[in-house]
Amino acid sequence: MDLGWRGRFIVLEGPDGAGKSLQAARLATALRAMGHSLTLTREPGGTPLGERIRAILLARDEVPRSPASQALLFNAARRQLVSDVIGPALGRGETVVCDRWAYSTVAYQGFGSGLDRRSLGELERFATGGLQPDLVVLLDVPASVGLARRSRGDAEGLTAYERSPQHDLDYHQRVRAGYLAMAAEDPRRWRVIDARQTPDAVAVEVASFVQRILRSSEPTGGLVRKSP
Amino acid sequence: MDLGWRGRFIVLEGPDGAGKSLQAARLATALRAMGHSLTLTREPGGTPLGERIRAILLARDEVPRSPASQALLFNAARRQLVSDVIGPALGRGETVVCDRWAYSTVAYQGFGSGLDRRSLGELERFATGGLQPDLVVLLDVPASVGLARRSRGDAEGLTAYERSPQHDLDYHQRVRAGYLAMAAEDPRRWRVIDARQTPDAVAVEVASFVQRILRSSEPTGGLVRKSP
Repeated sequence: MDLGWRGRFIVLEGPDGAGKSLQAARLATALRAMGHSLTLTREPGGTPLGERIRAILLARDEVPRSPASQALLFNAARRQLVSDVIGPALGRGETVVCDRWAYSTVAYQGFGSGLDRRSLGELERFATGGLQPDLVVLLDVPASVGLARRSRGDAEGLTAYERSPQHDLDYHQRVRAGYLAMAAEDPRRWRVIDARQTPDAVAVEVASFVQRILRSSEPTGGLVRKSP
Repeated sequence: MDLGWRGRFIVLEGPDGAGKSLQAARLATALRAMGHSLTLTREPGGTPLGERIRAILLARDEVPRSPASQALLFNAARRQLVSDVIGPALGRGETVVCDRWAYSTVAYQGFGSGLDRRSLGELERFATGGLQPDLVVLLDVPASVGLARRSRGDAEGLTAYERSPQHDLDYHQRVRAGYLAMAAEDPRRWRVIDARQTPDAVAVEVASFVQRILRSSEPTGGLVRKSP
């Protein structure tokens, strides 16, 4: 897959409840107001196939979904998103803002559920062809804060799946630690924001990181062949 | 994944229209009549998650599904099937009969659509932990015969997806050639049956291959680590 792209690829990461979707929408609005051609998308989803896969992954039921099956499903949605949305938009020179990316699979199914990181890296490369973002903004909150915000924000409350012992506070602490470890391993690409701040304050920080990337002359992401 | 199994794992492969589902059902009935504990299942599907994935893969619509996304989806269903159905049944010493297996992904998405076989092998190992059948029975028909049987057998006719130029006779000839190549590469595990014969004649051949496997003292399949 030769994307031949020029645009910038920006990803927002972090746990549920950190405010990723809100910040992605605010960022998109701000960049469009500045005249940028922009594609805003999300994972899992962003294509008709991806949204169907999202419905399976996030269904509020107790259908067993092993971490490995989930990792494969997330990557199936990801592959279609790269082929049909992200790759073409970058090729047209657009800025792409994506709410979650492959790092979520590493954080949740890897650090959270214990799947082997090397195998997850192979799946990711199969799905993305090695595409990596120019900038990853991690909206970081303590696991307990993210869990509490998510419960409040959702009138239906948590699903049985989310309440299961496999997804307790320990699990969410492993997910957060995983995100922070990935950020520490690749400080050129990652920026960490304390998402306990007000949405306005977070938006200002996000915008400042993004503008620095958009002003730089060369993409920092791209197609890399080595293990992430 | 240590399955620690003793049962025999038998797979029926071949194109749509070759009679796999019918022969799998006949085989299951015959083996049960002989007193075998038997699990009959199918791919994609066989679990609640797998049947949802099947619905996405086989939906009669024109939602774009790239070969790579399909390969990931088939393996997501496969993983749940191994974890929840095939692995436990083999562990209980049962005979498992499965209508399609990972070879279908290699035949269709690999030989048919041109995906790299080595990458497909990595996906398969992620999904199956290296589990391989003791016996693969290939119900072989010329591509034109399989296509014609399928069209007749289906009142709704072929979907737009199936009629697309990517899935013409050439495609189905590559799929068949892929199956025959896999059978030739691993003659210890594979048996090829001319499925243009009557269903009764095919059933007799299937039963004779299966009985030979069930009588042998050691499983010939199992967990192998090398590339398929």
